[in-house]
Amino acid sequence: MQEYRHVLFATDLSPKAAEVGRHAQGLAARYGARLSFVHVIEEVNVSAGYELMPLLPEMPDEALTRESKAALARLAAELGLPEAVQTVLTSVSTKAGILDTAAELGVDLIVVGSHGRHGLALLLGSTADAVLHGARCDVLAVRLPD
Amino acid sequence: MQEYRHVLFATDLSPKAAEVGRHAQGLAARYGARLSFVHVIEEVNVSAGYELMPLLPEMPDEALTRESKAALARLAAELGLPEAVQTVLTSVSTKAGILDTAAELGVDLIVVGSHGRHGLALLLGSTADAVLHGARCDVLAVRLPD
Repeated sequence: MQEYRHVLFATDLSPKAAEVGRHAQGLAARYGARLSFVHVIEEVNVSAGYELMPLLPEMPDEALTRESKAALARLAAELGLPEAVQTVLTSVSTKAGILDTAAELGVDLIVVGSHGRHGLALLLGSTADAVLHGARCDVLAVRLPD
Repeated sequence: MQEYRHVLFATDLSPKAAEVGRHAQGLAARYGARLSFVHVIEEVNVSAGYELMPLLPEMPDEALTRESKAALARLAAELGLPEAVQTVLTSVSTKAGILDTAAELGVDLIVVGSHGRHGLALLLGSTADAVLHGARCDVLAVRLPD
Protein backbone atom coordinates (compact mmCIF):
# COMPACT_ATOMS: atom_id res chain seq x y z
CA MET A 1 0.00 0.00 0.00
CA GLN A 2 1.30 3.42 -0.96
CA GLU A 3 2.63 5.37 2.00
CA TYR A 4 2.98 9.09 1.56
CA ARG A 5 5.81 10.30 3.76
CA HIS A 6 6.24 13.89 2.67
CA VAL A 7 3.55 16.08 1.13
CA LEU A 8 4.30 19.41 -0.56
CA PHE A 9 1.50 21.96 -0.57
CA ALA A 10 2.09 24.33 -3.46
CA THR A 11 0.11 27.50 -2.89
CA ASP A 12 -0.59 30.72 -4.77
CA LEU A 13 -1.44 32.43 -1.45
CA SER A 14 -4.84 33.33 -2.88
CA PRO A 15 -7.90 33.75 -0.61
CA LYS A 16 -8.65 30.02 -1.08
CA ALA A 17 -5.16 28.95 0.00
CA ALA A 18 -6.15 27.90 3.52
CA GLU A 19 -8.95 25.72 2.14
CA VAL A 20 -6.59 23.79 -0.12
CA GLY A 21 -4.05 23.72 2.71
CA ARG A 22 -6.52 22.00 5.00
CA HIS A 23 -7.02 19.30 2.37
CA ALA A 24 -3.26 18.80 2.20
CA GLN A 25 -3.02 18.81 5.98
CA GLY A 26 -5.84 16.28 6.40
CA LEU A 27 -4.26 13.94 3.92
CA ALA A 28 -0.79 14.27 5.42
CA ALA A 29 -2.23 13.60 8.88
CA ARG A 30 -3.96 10.43 7.70
CA TYR A 31 -0.69 9.12 6.28
CA GLY A 32 1.43 10.37 9.15
CA ALA A 33 3.36 12.35 6.54
CA ARG A 34 5.29 15.60 6.83
CA LEU A 35 3.74 18.65 5.23
CA SER A 36 5.89 21.33 3.62
CA PHE A 37 4.86 24.53 1.86
CA VAL A 38 6.04 26.24 -1.30
CA HIS A 39 5.08 29.49 -2.98
CA VAL A 40 6.62 30.53 -6.27
CA ILE A 41 7.01 34.13 -7.38
CA GLU A 42 6.94 34.04 -11.14
CA GLU A 43 9.41 36.25 -12.94
CA VAL A 44 7.80 38.77 -15.26
CA ASN A 45 7.99 37.58 -18.84
CA VAL A 46 9.02 40.50 -20.99
CA SER A 47 9.49 38.68 -24.27
CA ALA A 48 6.55 40.60 -25.75
CA GLY A 49 8.30 43.95 -25.46
CA TYR A 50 12.06 44.15 -25.12
CA GLU A 51 11.92 47.90 -24.81
CA LEU A 52 10.43 47.43 -21.34
CA MET A 53 13.43 45.58 -20.02
CA PRO A 54 15.52 48.56 -18.92
CA LEU A 55 12.59 49.68 -16.79
CA LEU A 56 12.48 46.43 -14.82
CA PRO A 57 14.73 45.86 -11.84
CA GLU A 58 17.35 43.20 -12.45
CA MET A 59 16.89 41.61 -9.04
CA PRO A 60 13.73 39.86 -7.87
CA ASP A 61 11.53 42.23 -5.98
CA GLU A 62 12.77 41.91 -2.43
CA ALA A 63 9.69 43.49 -0.95
CA LEU A 64 7.47 40.98 -2.76
CA THR A 65 9.61 38.11 -1.52
CA ARG A 66 9.47 39.41 2.01
CA GLU A 67 5.69 39.83 1.85
CA SER A 68 5.22 36.36 0.38
CA LYS A 69 7.34 34.81 3.11
CA ALA A 70 5.23 36.52 5.75
CA ALA A 71 1.98 35.41 4.08
CA LEU A 72 3.23 31.81 3.83
CA ALA A 73 4.27 31.87 7.49
CA ARG A 74 0.79 33.12 8.44
CA LEU A 75 -0.79 30.33 6.37
CA ALA A 76 1.39 27.67 8.02
CA ALA A 77 0.54 29.10 11.44
CA GLU A 78 -3.17 29.13 10.57
CA LEU A 79 -2.92 25.42 9.83
CA GLY A 80 -1.11 24.87 13.11
CA LEU A 81 2.19 24.09 11.41
CA PRO A 82 4.42 27.10 12.11
CA GLU A 83 7.56 24.95 12.10
CA ALA A 84 6.93 23.34 8.70
CA VAL A 85 9.41 23.88 5.87
CA GLN A 86 8.28 26.98 3.97
CA THR A 87 9.95 27.71 0.67
CA VAL A 88 9.47 30.96 -1.22
CA LEU A 89 11.39 31.20 -4.44
CA THR A 90 11.49 33.16 -7.66
CA SER A 91 11.39 31.17 -10.88
CA VAL A 92 10.76 31.66 -14.58
CA SER A 93 7.69 29.48 -14.12
CA THR A 94 5.50 28.40 -11.22
CA LYS A 95 5.75 24.84 -12.52
CA ALA A 96 9.55 24.82 -12.50
CA GLY A 97 9.67 26.34 -9.04
CA ILE A 98 7.28 23.78 -7.59
CA LEU A 99 8.98 20.82 -9.27
CA ASP A 100 12.44 21.99 -8.23
CA THR A 101 11.28 22.28 -4.64
CA ALA A 102 9.54 18.88 -4.80
CA ALA A 103 12.75 17.27 -6.05
CA GLU A 104 14.90 19.06 -3.47
CA LEU A 105 12.68 18.02 -0.56
CA GLY A 106 12.11 14.53 -1.98
CA VAL A 107 8.34 14.69 -1.53
CA ASP A 108 6.09 11.92 -2.81
CA LEU A 109 2.92 13.97 -3.24
CA ILE A 110 2.27 17.51 -4.43
CA VAL A 111 -1.08 19.11 -3.50
CA VAL A 112 -2.22 22.03 -5.59
CA GLY A 113 -5.50 23.92 -6.02
CA SER A 114 -7.34 23.55 -9.30
CA HIS A 115 -9.72 26.14 -10.68
CA GLY A 116 -12.40 25.55 -13.23
CA ARG A 117 -11.16 26.76 -16.58
CA HIS A 118 -13.16 28.54 -19.18
CA GLY A 119 -12.30 30.82 -22.07
CA LEU A 120 -8.90 32.41 -21.82
CA ALA A 121 -7.95 30.50 -18.68
CA LEU A 122 -8.47 27.25 -20.59
CA LEU A 123 -6.06 28.39 -23.30
CA LEU A 124 -3.45 29.55 -20.83
CA GLY A 125 -3.50 26.31 -18.92
CA SER A 126 -3.25 26.01 -15.15
CA THR A 127 -0.63 25.38 -12.55
CA ALA A 128 -2.26 22.05 -11.71
CA ASP A 129 -1.88 21.00 -15.34
CA ALA A 130 1.68 22.15 -15.59
CA VAL A 131 2.70 20.41 -12.38
CA LEU A 132 0.97 17.22 -13.48
CA HIS A 133 2.97 17.23 -16.72
CA GLY A 134 6.34 17.45 -15.10
CA ALA A 135 6.00 15.82 -11.70
CA ARG A 136 8.00 12.73 -10.84
CA CYS A 137 5.62 12.00 -7.96
CA ASP A 138 1.86 11.87 -7.36
CA VAL A 139 -0.21 15.04 -7.70
CA LEU A 140 -3.49 15.81 -5.93
CA ALA A 141 -5.50 18.59 -7.56
CA VAL A 142 -7.98 20.04 -5.08
CA ARG A 143 -10.95 21.44 -6.95
CA LEU A 144 -11.92 24.96 -6.01
CA PRO A 145 -15.34 26.41 -6.71
CA ASP A 146 -15.46 28.67 -9.77
CA MET B 1 -10.95 19.00 7.18
CA GLN B 2 -11.82 17.48 3.82
CA GLU B 3 -13.48 14.09 4.14
CA TYR B 4 -13.47 11.92 1.07
CA ARG B 5 -16.53 9.69 1.15
CA HIS B 6 -16.51 8.08 -2.27
CA VAL B 7 -13.43 7.51 -4.42
CA LEU B 8 -13.62 6.55 -8.08
CA PHE B 9 -10.67 4.62 -9.46
CA ALA B 10 -10.56 5.16 -13.22
CA THR B 11 -8.48 2.44 -14.80
CA ASP B 12 -7.21 1.59 -18.27
CA LEU B 13 -6.83 -2.07 -17.18
CA SER B 14 -3.17 -1.90 -18.20
CA PRO B 15 -0.53 -4.07 -16.47
CA LYS B 16 0.02 -1.25 -13.95
CA ALA B 17 -3.68 -1.04 -13.04
CA ALA B 18 -3.40 -2.98 -9.79
CA GLU B 19 -0.58 -0.71 -8.62
CA VAL B 20 -2.67 2.43 -9.10
CA GLY B 21 -5.65 0.61 -7.63
CA ARG B 22 -3.74 -0.09 -4.44
CA HIS B 23 -3.02 3.63 -4.11
CA ALA B 24 -6.71 4.36 -4.50
CA GLN B 25 -7.60 1.63 -2.06
CA GLY B 26 -5.11 2.81 0.55
CA LEU B 27 -6.40 6.34 0.34
CA ALA B 28 -10.05 5.28 0.50
CA ALA B 29 -9.27 3.09 3.52
CA ARG B 30 -7.60 5.97 5.34
CA TYR B 31 -10.68 8.15 4.81
CA GLY B 32 -13.17 5.35 5.44
CA ALA B 33 -14.47 6.08 1.92
CA ARG B 34 -16.16 3.81 -0.58
CA LEU B 35 -14.13 2.78 -3.62
CA SER B 36 -15.75 2.31 -7.02
CA PHE B 37 -14.19 1.35 -10.34
CA VAL B 38 -14.68 2.58 -13.87
CA HIS B 39 -13.19 1.53 -17.19
CA VAL B 40 -14.04 3.35 -20.39
CA ILE B 41 -13.95 1.73 -23.81
CA GLU B 42 -13.23 4.53 -26.24
CA GLU B 43 -15.20 4.51 -29.47
CA VAL B 44 -13.06 4.40 -32.57
CA ASN B 45 -12.81 7.83 -34.14
CA VAL B 46 -13.33 7.45 -37.85
CA SER B 47 -13.49 11.12 -38.75
CA ALA B 48 -10.24 10.80 -40.71
CA GLY B 49 -11.75 8.43 -43.24
CA TYR B 50 -15.48 8.23 -43.72
CA GLU B 51 -15.07 5.47 -46.24
CA LEU B 52 -14.14 3.16 -43.37
CA MET B 53 -17.45 3.59 -41.62
CA PRO B 54 -19.41 0.88 -43.39
CA LEU B 55 -16.74 -1.59 -42.35
CA LEU B 56 -17.21 -0.83 -38.67
CA PRO B 57 -19.91 -2.50 -36.61
CA GLU B 58 -22.65 -0.13 -35.54
CA MET B 59 -22.85 -1.52 -32.04
CA PRO B 60 -20.05 -1.38 -29.50
CA ASP B 61 -17.99 -4.51 -29.57
CA GLU B 62 -19.86 -6.77 -27.20
CA ALA B 63 -16.97 -9.16 -26.84
CA LEU B 64 -14.67 -6.29 -25.83
CA THR B 65 -17.19 -5.06 -23.29
CA ARG B 66 -17.57 -8.56 -21.87
CA GLU B 67 -13.79 -8.99 -21.65
CA SER B 68 -13.37 -5.58 -20.01
CA LYS B 69 -16.04 -6.36 -17.43
CA ALA B 70 -14.29 -9.62 -16.58
CA ALA B 71 -10.91 -7.87 -16.31
CA LEU B 72 -12.36 -5.16 -14.07
CA ALA B 73 -14.00 -7.80 -11.86
CA ARG B 74 -10.64 -9.60 -11.55
CA LEU B 75 -8.97 -6.31 -10.61
CA ALA B 76 -11.60 -5.56 -7.95
CA ALA B 77 -11.23 -9.09 -6.58
CA GLU B 78 -7.44 -8.75 -6.56
CA LEU B 79 -7.86 -5.67 -4.37
CA GLY B 80 -10.23 -7.58 -2.11
CA LEU B 81 -13.25 -5.54 -3.25
CA PRO B 82 -15.31 -7.94 -5.36
CA GLU B 83 -18.57 -6.22 -4.33
CA ALA B 84 -17.49 -2.70 -5.31
CA VAL B 85 -19.42 -0.81 -7.98
CA GLN B 86 -17.74 -1.60 -11.30
CA THR B 87 -18.74 0.44 -14.31
CA VAL B 88 -17.68 -0.42 -17.85
CA LEU B 89 -19.00 1.91 -20.50
CA THR B 90 -18.38 2.94 -24.08
CA SER B 91 -17.89 6.63 -24.75
CA VAL B 92 -16.57 8.95 -27.43
CA SER B 93 -13.82 9.87 -24.99
CA THR B 94 -12.26 8.32 -21.91
CA LYS B 95 -12.55 11.71 -20.22
CA ALA B 96 -16.28 11.99 -20.85
CA GLY B 97 -16.90 8.44 -19.69
CA ILE B 98 -14.98 8.95 -16.44
CA LEU B 99 -16.59 12.31 -15.70
CA ASP B 100 -20.09 11.01 -16.45
CA THR B 101 -19.53 8.10 -14.09
CA ALA B 102 -18.07 10.39 -11.42
CA ALA B 103 -21.14 12.64 -11.62
CA GLU B 104 -23.54 9.71 -11.60
CA LEU B 105 -21.96 8.13 -8.53
CA GLY B 106 -21.44 11.48 -6.83
CA VAL B 107 -17.79 10.77 -5.99
CA ASP B 108 -15.57 13.41 -4.43
CA LEU B 109 -12.22 12.10 -5.65
CA ILE B 110 -11.09 10.52 -8.91
CA VAL B 111 -7.85 8.49 -8.88
CA VAL B 112 -6.13 7.96 -12.20
CA GLY B 113 -2.70 6.72 -13.28
CA SER B 114 -0.36 9.23 -14.87
CA HIS B 115 2.41 8.29 -17.26
CA GLY B 116 5.45 10.32 -18.08
CA ARG B 117 4.88 12.04 -21.36
CA HIS B 118 7.44 12.61 -24.05
CA GLY B 119 7.27 13.25 -27.78
CA LEU B 120 3.99 12.24 -29.37
CA ALA B 121 2.38 11.31 -26.05
CA LEU B 122 2.98 14.87 -24.87
CA LEU B 123 1.13 16.26 -27.88
CA LEU B 124 -1.77 13.87 -27.53
CA GLY B 125 -2.29 14.68 -23.88
CA SER B 126 -3.17 12.15 -21.23
CA THR B 127 -6.25 10.87 -19.51
CA ALA B 128 -5.05 12.40 -16.24
CA ASP B 129 -4.87 15.81 -17.95
CA ALA B 130 -8.23 15.47 -19.56
CA VAL B 131 -9.92 14.39 -16.34
CA LEU B 132 -8.26 17.23 -14.45
CA HIS B 133 -9.68 19.74 -16.95
CA GLY B 134 -13.26 18.65 -16.62
CA ALA B 135 -13.62 17.26 -13.11
CA ARG B 136 -15.99 18.88 -10.64
CA CYS B 137 -14.19 17.09 -7.80
CA ASP B 138 -10.62 16.45 -6.66
CA VAL B 139 -8.28 14.39 -8.83
CA LEU B 140 -5.31 12.33 -7.65
CA ALA B 141 -2.85 11.48 -10.42
CA VAL B 142 -0.72 8.50 -9.41
CA ARG B 143 2.63 8.70 -11.15
CA LEU B 144 3.67 5.52 -12.92
CA PRO B 145 7.27 4.78 -13.84
CA ASP B 146 8.07 5.45 -17.53
